[in-house]
Amino acid sequence: MAAGPRVGILMGSDSDLGVMEDAAKALNELGVSWELTVLSAHRNPEGVRQYALTAPQRGLQVLIAAAGGAAHLPGVVAASTTLPVIGVPILTAALGGADALYSIVQMPPGVPVATVGLNAARNAAILAVQMLALGEPALRLRLEQFKGDLLRQNEAKNAKAQERVAALRGE
Amino acid sequence: MAAGPRVGILMGSDSDLGVMEDAAKALNELGVSWELTVLSAHRNPEGVRQYALTAPQRGLQVLIAAAGGAAHLPGVVAASTTLPVIGVPILTAALGGADALYSIVQMPPGVPVATVGLNAARNAAILAVQMLALGEPALRLRLEQFKGDLLRQNEAKNAKAQERVAALRGE
Amino acid sequence: MAAGPRVGILMGSDSDLGVMEDAAKALNELGVSWELTVLSAHRNPEGVRQYALTAPQRGLQVLIAAAGGAAHLPGVVAASTTLPVIGVPILTAALGGADALYSIVQMPPGVPVATVGLNAARNAAILAVQMLALGEPALRLRLEQFKGDLLRQNEAKNAKAQERVAALRGE
Amino acid sequence: MAAGPRVGILMGSDSDLGVMEDAAKALNELGVSWELTVLSAHRNPEGVRQYALTAPQRGLQVLIAAAGGAAHLPGVVAASTTLPVIGVPILTAALGGADALYSIVQMPPGVPVATVGLNAARNAAILAVQMLALGEPALRLRLEQFKGDLLRQNEAKNAKAQERVAALRGE
Amino acid sequence: MAAGPRVGILMGSDSDLGVMEDAAKALNELGVSWELTVLSAHRNPEGVRQYALTAPQRGLQVLIAAAGGAAHLPGVVAASTTLPVIGVPILTAALGGADALYSIVQMPPGVPVATVGLNAARNAAILAVQMLALGEPALRLRLEQFKGDLLRQNEAKNAKAQERVAALRGE
Amino acid sequence: MAAGPRVGILMGSDSDLGVMEDAAKALNELGVSWELTVLSAHRNPEGVRQYALTAPQRGLQVLIAAAGGAAHLPGVVAASTTLPVIGVPILTAALGGADALYSIVQMPPGVPVATVGLNAARNAAILAVQMLALGEPALRLRLEQFKGDLLRQNEAKNAKAQERVAALRGE
Amino acid sequence: MAAGPRVGILMGSDSDLGVMEDAAKALNELGVSWELTVLSAHRNPEGVRQYALTAPQRGLQVLIAAAGGAAHLPGVVAASTTLPVIGVPILTAALGGADALYSIVQMPPGVPVATVGLNAARNAAILAVQMLALGEPALRLRLEQFKGDLLRQNEAKNAKAQERVAALRGE
Amino acid sequence: MAAGPRVGILMGSDSDLGVMEDAAKALNELGVSWELTVLSAHRNPEGVRQYALTAPQRGLQVLIAAAGGAAHLPGVVAASTTLPVIGVPILTAALGGADALYSIVQMPPGVPVATVGLNAARNAAILAVQMLALGEPALRLRLEQFKGDLLRQNEAKNAKAQERVAALRGE
Repeated sequence: MAAGPRVGILMGSDSDLGVMEDAAKALNELGVSWELTVLSAHRNPEGVRQYALTAPQRGLQVLIAAAGGAAHLPGVVAASTTLPVIGVPILTAALGGADALYSIVQMPPGVPVATVGLNAARNAAILAVQMLALGEPALRLRLEQFKGDLLRQNEAKNAKAQERVAALRGE
Repeated sequence: MAAGPRVGILMGSDSDLGVMEDAAKALNELGVSWELTVLSAHRNPEGVRQYALTAPQRGLQVLIAAAGGAAHLPGVVAASTTLPVIGVPILTAALGGADALYSIVQMPPGVPVATVGLNAARNAAILAVQMLALGEPALRLRLEQFKGDLLRQNEAKNAKAQERVAALRGE
Repeated sequence: MAAGPRVGILMGSDSDLGVMEDAAKALNELGVSWELTVLSAHRNPEGVRQYALTAPQRGLQVLIAAAGGAAHLPGVVAASTTLPVIGVPILTAALGGADALYSIVQMPPGVPVATVGLNAARNAAILAVQMLALGEPALRLRLEQFKGDLLRQNEAKNAKAQERVAALRGE
Repeated sequence: MAAGPRVGILMGSDSDLGVMEDAAKALNELGVSWELTVLSAHRNPEGVRQYALTAPQRGLQVLIAAAGGAAHLPGVVAASTTLPVIGVPILTAALGGADALYSIVQMPPGVPVATVGLNAARNAAILAVQMLALGEPALRLRLEQFKGDLLRQNEAKNAKAQERVAALRGE
Repeated sequence: MAAGPRVGILMGSDSDLGVMEDAAKALNELGVSWELTVLSAHRNPEGVRQYALTAPQRGLQVLIAAAGGAAHLPGVVAASTTLPVIGVPILTAALGGADALYSIVQMPPGVPVATVGLNAARNAAILAVQMLALGEPALRLRLEQFKGDLLRQNEAKNAKAQERVAALRGE
Repeated sequence: MAAGPRVGILMGSDSDLGVMEDAAKALNELGVSWELTVLSAHRNPEGVRQYALTAPQRGLQVLIAAAGGAAHLPGVVAASTTLPVIGVPILTAALGGADALYSIVQMPPGVPVATVGLNAARNAAILAVQMLALGEPALRLRLEQFKGDLLRQNEAKNAKAQERVAALRGE
Repeated sequence: MAAGPRVGILMGSDSDLGVMEDAAKALNELGVSWELTVLSAHRNPEGVRQYALTAPQRGLQVLIAAAGGAAHLPGVVAASTTLPVIGVPILTAALGGADALYSIVQMPPGVPVATVGLNAARNAAILAVQMLALGEPALRLRLEQFKGDLLRQNEAKNAKAQERVAALRGE
Repeated sequence: MAAGPRVGILMGSDSDLGVMEDAAKALNELGVSWELTVLSAHRNPEGVRQYALTAPQRGLQVLIAAAGGAAHLPGVVAASTTLPVIGVPILTAALGGADALYSIVQMPPGVPVATVGLNAARNAAILAVQMLALGEPALRLRLEQFKGDLLRQNEAKNAKAQERVAALRGE
């Protein structure tokens, strides 16, 4: 099980791949193994169910599922596993993305989906690592370093913005 | 198969029963047999799948599925059958019911759900009978009579409203 | 009647044609005959009414009606027929398309419209065929094959996505 | 024609009567004759069409139409007349009333509906009288007096509010 | 007064001119004189008030006011006149245009604004002419011809669409 | 000028008084003088304009304006003064209050309204005092004490909640 | 650390206690220790920060934070910890709860909040246990049993619903 | 303190700089000194807190804070100061900007944020100057001149629009 992926990234359509590869990249940065599968809750329901049921024995510990529109994939996965499922609503042209967001977050009692923001693939990955870090001090440390990086990047952006400020003052 | 129900009414939670029994009543009025099952896409996913897969051999011809919030039941049923599936979004206190409506209607290409209005159980039943009537002139006739009744009821309501009109004129 | 179209595709404006020809294409794929008519509920109300009233005698069995904005066409058609009417809300720049969706789906008791998602012309066609298949085993078989194709396409998309996965792993 | 009503008030359902009788009352106040009819665009489409087509010859000059949900009545009436049509969206429990509002106001080019606010039956009546006053100085005068009354009522409400102010100051 | 404009078109910002010139064009088509003024309720409130108060004596009979965002212009005009005021909400990038629509249509009792759809400048003009036609049979006749044109244009669009239909059939 | 009110509280309708007296109470607590006036932008536009124009000479320094629906009062006041204007959208049954919020906050460039939350009369008062405190150290000190009170109240509520916690633990 | 709580439940106001005690009850059922604190991000920001910074050393492993309106608490907590933070938007009368939902879920890259549905305190607790179970087979087992209970309860509800079905059939 | 900036402009991300530099430009026009800082409530919470706590001693009198999505920055700043805080919601592709607007405006009792419209950086600056002018007649005078300029610009735009009017008349 050791060499296998720990985080499973699922999406209903390959059109979501452009958004969701940010999750894979963030997991790479944080040193957590992953797999990525295109698997539609509506076109391949039995595939999704088998994926969810066999995930633990294949070593997967956290699942990330993305979908747009009537975004059922995260909830359908959550129905068939007790692993934590993170849902990523995909923004499309219709309804400002409220369709995907509501379809994922408003789950009934007993079957939660941990929903992140619209197109927030990167945050889904970080959240997955936060979960994995619960029993793994080395991961926690990496997250702390990552959080420090966020702070330093924000400070660097501010420093860079001061160049524009100087120009604005000179008007 | 002959004596079995032709329309299957599904709902995710027994709290939807108060709304959905209107579907059963309308089917009674139109003389179409039905069954009603509480079956949650999230709590009993395999049950839902079996229900959908075996529906044709049990003689079911149209399925009506109701759910609120992240209302996945209609879409999950539609994923496992080629029978027409009618979705009824249930109105709850949150988001004006937009969560249930969007979760049901915004299905991806290939897997439609025939969505009716919020809490529109009665319309779901009528739509089911309109489908069944495609090959059944007797049902079509009943629907025509039913449509005539709608017209007459509307006219009767107008006649009754004229009593209030008389009072308003007398002010 | 035999040679005539079985599904009538209606739209209020020719600007909807780009979206709605997907319905015609899907019906072609599934081997169901159709006709397509531009007919506005607001500019040609009597034409719409005559279309609806004469549809059965012309051999039409299911009607698909598309409109944007205050999208009355599906409901107006449904008011004058007991054939099943499928409504396709058209997405425009305003209100995220909620105007068309609400105008179509929120029909009053007695007069349902089977609503599909925004711009979901293809799903409207599939839903129409699901209805026609109620009394027609050959159509049911084609739908089952179609459903199998969906699954295989989804699997093929996953296979293709693994190329991108390999690139992401190599980062 | 002289003694007949000048404003026709229409509503799809008698459940709208409680809201819409405010229109009749306002017309009474302003001395404009009216009639009120329950007539559903979906249950009695031919009745609506005949109503609209014959309205001018029966002496009606302005039409007010109210509906909730997929509120098609005002637009359907407007499709069959060149008389000005005022639409009143009715507030129901679903979607904050956005369904009725959008269904009425978002009419396509060529067929306007003069939309007022949710449940704004009184404003519909005043708007109707503003239209009738275009060629009728006596009505214009009454509207000016009515506008003066609004101002005085607002001042009177302020005077009354000062009693509460005194209590608040004394805290 | 005879030669002066009968319809006053107002807009808060010259950025609305691209949309609102459709109102002027429609009035040209229907042979009704107009004037067009850029006048902001927030930047020139006294100008708006004087415009509204003097409109009747300058021969204006109907006012059309357009604005986006917190779209107060139509309501502010309506506050100072008993002429009918038609409001045109302008669609901008924010909130799907709901801000302009709600700001215009939800007027309090006593002060109606006849609201048309987002960017519906053309419909505002037609509605204005419908009002003017109340006492003017020649205008009514032109509106009837205009309505006939709508029907014929719709039929012509259908005829043209059949070319595309033929291509679709040939697939 | 010394003894006169410094904050003017305006509302369009006396039905808003129940909400807006919280602003008066908060100003009482913070020791800032106020006046409260019912004054409708639509029913008494000239009254509103005179109020705004004369506010500075009457010693008013900050204006708070509340309204529901097409909530124009704050923006109309802001159009006629350079005093800061705080807008309070009033929650009504329609549209979840989005109508009042959007009508107040989406002001065009040049004429801002400082908008607070739906029914947030108390926050409007605190914001007014924050503005007045810019040149007045004694008021700043009171605000600091008030902020300290908020913290202590929050701590007290937590202490009280622990009683319920104890009960929950005992289950 | 052993005896201390593992899940910290936070809420901005004691008015959220009625909703959030369901989280505590669910944790009791699943045998996971918890603490509950009323702590406002806006009234006691330093308290929130200290809570978040010291949470790991006090043995807390997952944080649940609930808030309504401009619901900043979950995000503010997440800004100061790498523990997973679960956000519960609280439904209030305004905006259908969209304010709380959007304020919690739409976090920027780098700082995720695992958002559950409106008022979904129970699901927040289950999600917390799903996270804790990542390294704890005994907890996983309890979750599996819990999932089995959901299924059995759903089946029991169906059985009970058949009583109502029998009554409906007898009509 | 004399030479230091009086208005602090904050934004969570440098991607907001293109919008927010309009605030700096408007302050330049009105002759009020400012500083601009990129500082994220979620990536650098302690930096935000220190900024807010030290703002008064550094001579800052009004703070403007901008953010998109779950826009917590203005509220987080307001939690740690009694200076007035102006919030600018930033429009992004999701949800029509309602996420940022609701996250900023719906603050709880005790901690107001003076919210302006989506992307309304210029209005935020003007509002800041309106506050500063409370104790500073020279600033008030500049605002009055600025208000006069708005009026003249509006009149100039109208004059320019008449060129287009002439063209439209010539059609």
